[in-house]
Amino acid sequence: MSSAHEGPDFDKGDGLLPAIAQDATNGDVLMLAYMNAESYAETLATGRAVYFSRSRGRLWRKGEESGNVQKVESIHLDCDRDTILLSVTQVGGAACHEGYRSCFFRRVTPEGLVTEGERVFDPSEVYKKK
Amino acid sequence: MSSAHEGPDFDKGDGLLPAIAQDATNGDVLMLAYMNAESYAETLATGRAVYFSRSRGRLWRKGEESGNVQKVESIHLDCDRDTILLSVTQVGGAACHEGYRSCFFRRVTPEGLVTEGERVFDPSEVYKKK
Repeated sequence: MSSAHEGPDFDKGDGLLPAIAQDATNGDVLMLAYMNAESYAETLATGRAVYFSRSRGRLWRKGEESGNVQKVESIHLDCDRDTILLSVTQVGGAACHEGYRSCFFRRVTPEGLVTEGERVFDPSEVYKKK
Repeated sequence: MSSAHEGPDFDKGDGLLPAIAQDATNGDVLMLAYMNAESYAETLATGRAVYFSRSRGRLWRKGEESGNVQKVESIHLDCDRDTILLSVTQVGGAACHEGYRSCFFRRVTPEGLVTEGERVFDPSEVYKKK
């Protein structure tokens, strides 16, 4: 079943597959984004997470603006080869553009969404320098 | 920002959003599937993970065939409210229909995919009883 040519099946999902970034140090799920074949290939080649931004319609080199790149420690594929799991070291300590360690900083409760995550940086400081 | 009516934004993704199931005990990412509004509502109401099967075009009550249901311990939403993170207790110890604890049982290496996960059950035994 194994060959050097096996990889994600980008024919599924119209060429875009979900990619989960998980913190290599503590297992926290940091974010989910999408990859196309090109971003996956660049991730493999560079060892840094490169996604495809659906809203911007182009490659998204995570951290290109904030400096908070993700060093890729390992990659796993799921049974259907249509989801990618990245184990990453998150430079800067925060994956979320809102300044939280994880994008999943809000918990669903009967009373609504409750913010649980800790803010690592102030987004207005990080993204203003253009 | 919080209200009892806040939830996933199912208007994105044509009504289907990715849902990540993470093992509540050790943080392993077990699988990724999709939810629509109905499956999300049933998940909240029952405390068991209910997905929407894209291939079968219907609700998929995880474990309906294998008995390996997922008890939902908590739910988090990401910053864009378009990805759902479930913390689950996986009954039977295996989330993957191929019998592995996690669907992400294969690691990407320069030599191809390498199976790392441990097989908990034999799929031919679990799925033959119809």
